[in-house]
Amino acid sequence: MKARITVTLKSGVLDPQGKAIEGALHGLGFADAANVRQGKIIEMKLDETNEAAARARVEDMCRKLLANPVMENYSIEISA
Amino acid sequence: MKARITVTLKSGVLDPQGKAIEGALHGLGFADAANVRQGKIIEMKLDETNEAAARARVEDMCRKLLANPVMENYSIEISA
Repeated sequence: MKARITVTLKSGVLDPQGKAIEGALHGLGFADAANVRQGKIIEMKLDETNEAAARARVEDMCRKLLANPVMENYSIEISA
Repeated sequence: MKARITVTLKSGVLDPQGKAIEGALHGLGFADAANVRQGKIIEMKLDETNEAAARARVEDMCRKLLANPVMENYSIEISA
Protein backbone atom coordinates (compact mmCIF):
# COMPACT_ATOMS: atom_id res chain seq x y z
CA MET A 1 0.00 0.00 0.00
CA LYS A 2 1.05 3.59 -0.41
CA ALA A 3 0.91 6.08 2.44
CA ARG A 4 0.97 9.85 2.28
CA ILE A 5 1.51 11.72 5.53
CA THR A 6 0.87 15.44 5.74
CA VAL A 7 2.55 17.20 8.65
CA THR A 8 1.56 20.79 9.41
CA LEU A 9 2.41 23.14 12.25
CA LYS A 10 -0.39 23.66 14.77
CA SER A 11 -2.19 26.93 14.23
CA GLY A 12 -0.74 28.80 17.22
CA VAL A 13 2.85 27.93 16.35
CA LEU A 14 4.98 30.59 14.65
CA ASP A 15 5.98 29.54 11.14
CA PRO A 16 9.06 31.53 10.04
CA GLN A 17 9.36 29.63 6.76
CA GLY A 18 5.76 30.49 5.90
CA LYS A 19 6.41 34.12 6.81
CA ALA A 20 9.47 34.18 4.54
CA ILE A 21 7.43 32.78 1.64
CA GLU A 22 4.69 35.33 2.32
CA GLY A 23 7.23 38.17 2.26
CA ALA A 24 8.72 36.91 -1.00
CA LEU A 25 5.24 36.60 -2.59
CA HIS A 26 4.43 40.17 -1.56
CA GLY A 27 7.71 41.29 -3.08
CA LEU A 28 6.73 39.61 -6.36
CA GLY A 29 3.43 41.48 -6.46
CA PHE A 30 1.15 38.83 -4.96
CA ALA A 31 -0.01 41.24 -2.28
CA ASP A 32 -3.15 39.31 -1.32
CA ALA A 33 -1.39 36.10 -0.24
CA ALA A 34 -2.03 35.86 3.50
CA ASN A 35 -1.65 33.32 6.31
CA VAL A 36 1.01 31.42 4.39
CA ARG A 37 2.01 28.23 6.22
CA GLN A 38 4.48 25.60 5.14
CA GLY A 39 4.27 21.94 6.06
CA LYS A 40 5.77 18.74 4.79
CA ILE A 41 4.54 15.70 3.06
CA ILE A 42 6.06 12.23 3.28
CA GLU A 43 5.19 9.46 0.84
CA MET A 44 6.19 5.82 1.16
CA LYS A 45 5.38 2.30 0.08
CA LEU A 46 4.56 -0.42 2.60
CA ASP A 47 4.42 -4.20 2.17
CA GLU A 48 1.30 -4.33 4.34
CA THR A 49 -1.81 -5.14 2.27
CA ASN A 50 -4.50 -4.46 4.88
CA GLU A 51 -5.54 -0.81 4.95
CA ALA A 52 -6.33 -0.62 8.67
CA ALA A 53 -3.07 -2.33 9.59
CA ALA A 54 -1.11 -0.03 7.27
CA ARG A 55 -2.76 3.01 8.83
CA ALA A 56 -1.96 1.82 12.36
CA ARG A 57 1.65 1.25 11.32
CA VAL A 58 1.96 4.73 9.83
CA GLU A 59 0.32 6.27 12.95
CA ASP A 60 3.05 4.57 14.95
CA MET A 61 5.74 5.99 12.61
CA CYS A 62 4.26 9.48 13.02
CA ARG A 63 4.30 9.27 16.80
CA LYS A 64 7.83 7.87 16.92
CA LEU A 65 9.58 9.85 14.18
CA LEU A 66 7.71 11.75 11.52
CA ALA A 67 5.81 14.38 13.50
CA ASN A 68 6.38 16.30 16.70
CA PRO A 69 2.97 16.06 18.39
CA VAL A 70 3.75 19.07 20.61
CA MET A 71 3.95 21.45 17.64
CA GLU A 72 2.58 19.58 14.66
CA ASN A 73 -0.59 17.94 13.40
CA TYR A 74 -0.49 15.09 10.96
CA SER A 75 -2.94 13.37 8.68
CA ILE A 76 -2.55 10.05 6.93
CA GLU A 77 -3.92 8.89 3.59
CA ILE A 78 -3.58 5.26 2.61
CA SER A 79 -4.12 4.08 -0.96
CA ALA A 80 -3.60 0.85 -2.86
CA MET B 1 -10.31 31.33 -1.13
CA LYS B 2 -7.79 28.94 0.34
CA ALA B 3 -5.04 27.35 -1.69
CA ARG B 4 -2.97 24.29 -0.89
CA ILE B 5 0.07 23.63 -3.03
CA THR B 6 1.87 20.31 -2.88
CA VAL B 7 5.43 20.33 -4.19
CA THR B 8 7.18 16.99 -4.70
CA LEU B 9 10.50 16.07 -6.26
CA LYS B 10 10.24 14.52 -9.72
CA SER B 11 10.63 10.76 -9.62
CA GLY B 12 14.15 10.58 -11.08
CA VAL B 13 15.57 13.17 -8.68
CA LEU B 14 17.60 11.91 -5.71
CA ASP B 15 15.87 12.72 -2.41
CA PRO B 16 18.45 12.65 0.42
CA GLN B 17 15.89 13.79 3.01
CA GLY B 18 13.60 10.92 2.05
CA LYS B 19 16.53 8.51 2.24
CA ALA B 20 17.40 9.78 5.73
CA ILE B 21 13.81 9.26 6.90
CA GLU B 22 13.81 5.78 5.37
CA GLY B 23 17.02 4.90 7.19
CA ALA B 24 15.63 6.19 10.49
CA LEU B 25 12.39 4.22 10.01
CA HIS B 26 14.39 1.06 9.35
CA GLY B 27 16.40 1.73 12.50
CA LEU B 28 13.14 1.97 14.48
CA GLY B 29 12.00 -1.41 13.22
CA PHE B 30 9.79 -0.29 10.32
CA ALA B 31 11.74 -2.44 7.91
CA ASP B 32 9.08 -2.47 5.18
CA ALA B 33 8.97 1.30 4.59
CA ALA B 34 10.32 1.78 1.07
CA ASN B 35 10.56 4.52 -1.56
CA VAL B 36 10.25 7.25 1.08
CA ARG B 37 10.05 10.69 -0.52
CA GLN B 38 9.63 14.03 1.19
CA GLY B 39 7.89 17.01 -0.32
CA LYS B 40 6.44 20.23 0.96
CA ILE B 41 3.02 21.69 1.27
CA ILE B 42 2.18 25.39 1.27
CA GLU B 43 -1.17 26.73 2.40
CA MET B 44 -2.39 30.28 2.02
CA LYS B 45 -5.45 32.49 1.91
CA LEU B 46 -6.24 34.66 -1.09
CA ASP B 47 -8.67 37.58 -1.46
CA GLU B 48 -9.70 36.31 -4.88
CA THR B 49 -13.23 34.84 -4.84
CA ASN B 50 -13.28 33.24 -8.29
CA GLU B 51 -11.87 29.73 -8.26
CA ALA B 52 -10.40 29.76 -11.77
CA ALA B 53 -8.77 33.14 -11.18
CA ALA B 54 -7.36 31.96 -7.84
CA ARG B 55 -5.93 28.85 -9.48
CA ALA B 56 -4.30 30.89 -12.26
CA ARG B 57 -2.78 33.19 -9.65
CA VAL B 58 -1.38 30.29 -7.63
CA GLU B 59 0.00 28.67 -10.83
CA ASP B 60 1.83 31.92 -11.42
CA MET B 61 3.22 31.87 -7.84
CA CYS B 62 4.41 28.29 -8.34
CA ARG B 63 6.22 29.13 -11.54
CA LYS B 64 7.81 32.27 -10.10
CA LEU B 65 8.68 31.19 -6.57
CA LEU B 66 7.18 28.13 -4.94
CA ALA B 67 8.42 25.30 -7.13
CA ASN B 68 11.50 24.61 -9.20
CA PRO B 69 10.00 23.16 -12.39
CA VAL B 70 13.31 21.54 -13.37
CA MET B 71 13.28 19.23 -10.35
CA GLU B 72 9.82 19.46 -8.85
CA ASN B 73 6.20 18.78 -9.67
CA TYR B 74 3.42 20.73 -8.04
CA SER B 75 -0.30 20.34 -7.66
CA ILE B 76 -2.80 22.95 -6.57
CA GLU B 77 -6.04 22.54 -4.64
CA ILE B 78 -8.36 25.51 -4.26
CA SER B 79 -11.18 25.52 -1.71
CA ALA B 80 -13.63 28.12 -0.41
